[in-house]
Amino acid sequence: MLKAGIVGGTGYTGVELLRLLAQHPHVELKAITSRKEAGTPVTAVFPSLRGRVELAFSEPRPEALRGCDVVFFATPNGVAMGEARALLDAGARVIDLSADFRIKDVGEWERWYRTKHAAPELIGDAVYGLPELNRERIRGARLVANPGCYPTATQLGFLPLVEAGAIDLDHLIADAKSGVSGAGRKTEQHLMFSEASDNFMAYNVPGHRHWPEIRQGLAQAARREVGLVFTAHLTPAIRGIHATLYGRITKELDFQALFEKRYAAEPFVDVMPAASHPDTRSVRAANVCRIAVHRPPEATNRSDTLVVLSVIDNLVKGASGQAVQNMNLMLGLPETAGLSQLPIVP
Amino acid sequence: MLKAGIVGGTGYTGVELLRLLAQHPHVELKAITSRKEAGTPVTAVFPSLRGRVELAFSEPRPEALRGCDVVFFATPNGVAMGEARALLDAGARVIDLSADFRIKDVGEWERWYRTKHAAPELIGDAVYGLPELNRERIRGARLVANPGCYPTATQLGFLPLVEAGAIDLDHLIADAKSGVSGAGRKTEQHLMFSEASDNFMAYNVPGHRHWPEIRQGLAQAARREVGLVFTAHLTPAIRGIHATLYGRITKELDFQALFEKRYAAEPFVDVMPAASHPDTRSVRAANVCRIAVHRPPEATNRSDTLVVLSVIDNLVKGASGQAVQNMNLMLGLPETAGLSQLPIVP
Amino acid sequence: MLKAGIVGGTGYTGVELLRLLAQHPHVELKAITSRKEAGTPVTAVFPSLRGRVELAFSEPRPEALRGCDVVFFATPNGVAMGEARALLDAGARVIDLSADFRIKDVGEWERWYRTKHAAPELIGDAVYGLPELNRERIRGARLVANPGCYPTATQLGFLPLVEAGAIDLDHLIADAKSGVSGAGRKTEQHLMFSEASDNFMAYNVPGHRHWPEIRQGLAQAARREVGLVFTAHLTPAIRGIHATLYGRITKELDFQALFEKRYAAEPFVDVMPAASHPDTRSVRAANVCRIAVHRPPEATNRSDTLVVLSVIDNLVKGASGQAVQNMNLMLGLPETAGLSQLPIVP
Amino acid sequence: MLKAGIVGGTGYTGVELLRLLAQHPHVELKAITSRKEAGTPVTAVFPSLRGRVELAFSEPRPEALRGCDVVFFATPNGVAMGEARALLDAGARVIDLSADFRIKDVGEWERWYRTKHAAPELIGDAVYGLPELNRERIRGARLVANPGCYPTATQLGFLPLVEAGAIDLDHLIADAKSGVSGAGRKTEQHLMFSEASDNFMAYNVPGHRHWPEIRQGLAQAARREVGLVFTAHLTPAIRGIHATLYGRITKELDFQALFEKRYAAEPFVDVMPAASHPDTRSVRAANVCRIAVHRPPEATNRSDTLVVLSVIDNLVKGASGQAVQNMNLMLGLPETAGLSQLPIVP
Repeated sequence: MLKAGIVGGTGYTGVELLRLLAQHPHVELKAITSRKEAGTPVTAVFPSLRGRVELAFSEPRPEALRGCDVVFFATPNGVAMGEARALLDAGARVIDLSADFRIKDVGEWERWYRTKHAAPELIGDAVYGLPELNRERIRGARLVANPGCYPTATQLGFLPLVEAGAIDLDHLIADAKSGVSGAGRKTEQHLMFSEASDNFMAYNVPGHRHWPEIRQGLAQAARREVGLVFTAHLTPAIRGIHATLYGRITKELDFQALFEKRYAAEPFVDVMPAASHPDTRSVRAANVCRIAVHRPPEATNRSDTLVVLSVIDNLVKGASGQAVQNMNLMLGLPETAGLSQLPIVP
Repeated sequence: MLKAGIVGGTGYTGVELLRLLAQHPHVELKAITSRKEAGTPVTAVFPSLRGRVELAFSEPRPEALRGCDVVFFATPNGVAMGEARALLDAGARVIDLSADFRIKDVGEWERWYRTKHAAPELIGDAVYGLPELNRERIRGARLVANPGCYPTATQLGFLPLVEAGAIDLDHLIADAKSGVSGAGRKTEQHLMFSEASDNFMAYNVPGHRHWPEIRQGLAQAARREVGLVFTAHLTPAIRGIHATLYGRITKELDFQALFEKRYAAEPFVDVMPAASHPDTRSVRAANVCRIAVHRPPEATNRSDTLVVLSVIDNLVKGASGQAVQNMNLMLGLPETAGLSQLPIVP
Repeated sequence: MLKAGIVGGTGYTGVELLRLLAQHPHVELKAITSRKEAGTPVTAVFPSLRGRVELAFSEPRPEALRGCDVVFFATPNGVAMGEARALLDAGARVIDLSADFRIKDVGEWERWYRTKHAAPELIGDAVYGLPELNRERIRGARLVANPGCYPTATQLGFLPLVEAGAIDLDHLIADAKSGVSGAGRKTEQHLMFSEASDNFMAYNVPGHRHWPEIRQGLAQAARREVGLVFTAHLTPAIRGIHATLYGRITKELDFQALFEKRYAAEPFVDVMPAASHPDTRSVRAANVCRIAVHRPPEATNRSDTLVVLSVIDNLVKGASGQAVQNMNLMLGLPETAGLSQLPIVP
Repeated sequence: MLKAGIVGGTGYTGVELLRLLAQHPHVELKAITSRKEAGTPVTAVFPSLRGRVELAFSEPRPEALRGCDVVFFATPNGVAMGEARALLDAGARVIDLSADFRIKDVGEWERWYRTKHAAPELIGDAVYGLPELNRERIRGARLVANPGCYPTATQLGFLPLVEAGAIDLDHLIADAKSGVSGAGRKTEQHLMFSEASDNFMAYNVPGHRHWPEIRQGLAQAARREVGLVFTAHLTPAIRGIHATLYGRITKELDFQALFEKRYAAEPFVDVMPAASHPDTRSVRAANVCRIAVHRPPEATNRSDTLVVLSVIDNLVKGASGQAVQNMNLMLGLPETAGLSQLPIVP
């Protein structure tokens, strides 16, 4: 069994990593750190893991993670960039679920995250961990920047069109809706049940940190800059992202066939039949992205706008599941190992 | 007291009309019909009205509504067009909350609603009941076609821009999200709690009946045809519509000022301060549309796309509240009479 | 117009008081204080009140409330007991929505609330504000201790039986379920959407502060001590309390008739027909308690246990609505003034 | 691989069986029947299973299930009793998730289910499939009556106390709350999202079909009849049952130790530490029952009433998971095979 460690495991991506790793056939969880909960058994914080996870949270000291083949950062932004170097030097692979290594342009990162970057020299080595875009580079990576949840759903929905040069790359629109767990486990007012339930709202419309990340990924695929309007919304569900994507057609193609071909070999991307409407629960708790392509309204012939629907579970394919997928690639394991749980419906 | 009747009062727009009319200072509810529930006290179906509504449902016969100054149709599509003529001839004003008289082009109506229209001769007389667009004509109308919920939120959000000719009218995009009550009180599988809760999905992307209605209203305002992509989504909330609207700027203006000026005198449209994100609960159970205008991302100067956020309660400003507003206009009552209830938060 | 002030208006009972008082025909809101939000317009915190409440929050200084006929404390426990004296001396009536004056036995209060009481000399003057139990004393009161939400639902459900001596007073059981807003607007982990949604749990089973309050009220009605097991649960709804009450029959009576007679003259208690199941939404946003009495299972004759179902909106009849009802009584206004809004269904 | 068949697989227990069996290491799903959906691929009804279940629904004819080692009935009540005989004669084990074989007293069954029983001669052979009560008999059974969801949570919570003779058996009280999926996938009005969401209610208080089932199981454990008041409630969650159980103490014991000892060897019953409050999400999508024992209020010494909290996922330990557990026992497989998925939190 290979050995895994988790830094900062008391949030939602942390407990989701715990759930996935506890059921992984080739990896054993060796340590999980938390400054706040050091000494507390993991199951005191997450009773759902009783009988299956025996670890206690440990102090976030280097020796806690010594000997790990892979270390996950499930920490707020700003932690991994300070600690990754030591772990890499000690021989571990590092997968950062936070945003520290996602943006290649340090200046842009510092503008959006309002901090000085602590390890700019590592950014170049970090591979952006979207396997459908960067699979081979992830296999060889020592440091993976695990994508954000919105960026995963949005990039997977746009990729075939962008690669094919089939839509106007200066005017992409992504209207995305997220369940509340996407904001993490922090206790902010607008995330309280009595505020978020039976409610719906857009947020951060003037500027969302996932905007530069999405643009960077699509620019890589397009080999040029892209223009994007990205609108995030909070929907009263625990999990799930639904990205509704709009692109103006510049080249006529069989778009259904384009998507099916692009993702034919992908184990975790499911192109739905034409006219489908994937719902977020169809991927609940599973490492899958389901996509449908539409050209509405079908009754007329004049529309030149494509609508792509892309759904993921923000905590799985949008975070911890994708992190395990990256781990599998980095450690030479079967890419699907430990990721075969079926979605929970209803 | 003026006398009101309701045809088909067992659905959500029916019970919402009952709630509003039972609290109206100038109107008395005289009769409410329902074939299925004839003879049953209203409070047996809606215990929330116990002690306040003494009526029983009556058979949907003409004499039940005799003497009414105004009759509301809270029926499925296809009923009002068969019964409106007799009521109009008897001297009643008619407000149809269904779609029967919304579309001026009978051929287009018949294509989308897949029925032969039973009273095409009345369509010309029917006034589309969006007071912010047609106030004066509503005052003089005998037959009002009450707008759909999505069309209300979408048109109010686009109107100032369309009237000002400030955006590309060939490529409007409306990404709209509705609470589940928008689908009515019918028992369909996908509207069950265990299907719709903790879930999010688009629906009817290939073609939604509100698409021609929105286009018609915006075309009236623009005095030309408009191109529109309209995507409807189901969000796990009971009430509320959130329309996120995208338009490509063709004329630079102070858009915040444009909206504020356009709606300055409107009693039921609230233009929020710049940078706001109206949430649907801020209008829950109230006859208000709140709107915010954005030009994201603010950090850059290159965006040429406006984002408008528009929220209503689908059962109030999107249906029964707007119907009461129309009734007030038609009967010469103060426009806000009976519509002053504050939103329910939390 | 009489003048009202609110101390601490940024929580849920505060905004609910604002909603009710803004629509009250005889009372004008003069001031609302908040240390944290002093200077902020009320509508910046609660956009739902835009256009209807013009006040800003003011510093919690005595002069802010000078001239008020009535002052509401919508503060956390421990504030009112320090500030009530000065307001009473200045001639205001005081209604405390917190727990400071609910328990007559100071020692017991201090045990449950783990604080030294700051104004024990006021406790004797304070009237427990359950109008159905203490109406006449409330009329003459200068200081009213507004009941807790669980105690309101539970006492109203048990009162007729306790007064009639019809059940075993040593073994009352109250199994109560509350929507999440009952816990207030504080940002605690277990009240987050992602924790409380799609979940159900009991809490504080070893001891809940509403236990002594319920026992005290029922003891007053019984003129002896009562034994009670009280279990609180959190249900994933914003508003609503459902108390399921169990009592062993000691005297055979027509229990339906007993309840109907007891509450015949009560404007805000609705005894449902036999075999009813009141749901919490039937009182949503309204100042009503609905009650049903059962003796299950009906198929057999052996049961000696009564089951009473009692529902309220925790923020209205369980807090701010009841406070306005008490205000009406104290100020000699019609008891139902400003409390006639109908429940919101769906 | 052993072969399994499912009769009537379009409901929630059906899709949950599909999810569990598709991941089972020793069993292969051979056929799933549905009159209504015959010919339709399973994944057209349940897209969550795309790529993992290749079957189509087949006509419910005997030959469809020929060769199955085990057949599950995931049908409405009244189907299994007509079809079980033929399958048993063909050599299959049968596990009925409906209520047809749960009640030993045919007369009582017919009173509660209002039908003539079609196979009374099989009732005696049927083993009630609660492994914690009847494990050895299940191993040898050919026909298992899988318990209802409320009965599973309630019996597991009461069993140690009843077996120990520690509480008053004439006055048990079970106050149980269920998520909406417990009512099945049928489209009834009160199960619609807009009716059940943000709401809470008791139902069937005059008489619930699970009442005789619970009494029968507890009577078996007690070796005498028991008296029970059982109240069912609908809570706005998809999955989960929370039973709050009350028993009057007749014998003083260390109740925490009693429960821990009783369930020490049980793989799917978790006795929580003293003072715990298990929530339903801690068992979401997993085959576990978590139990806590309380004696409130702890501050006093007078209480003679125990409170037991017992939670399960109604579709797993309350239905399909327990059915797979029974299948494992009947087929001589490890009892936990295919049932090791961890709960989904958040």
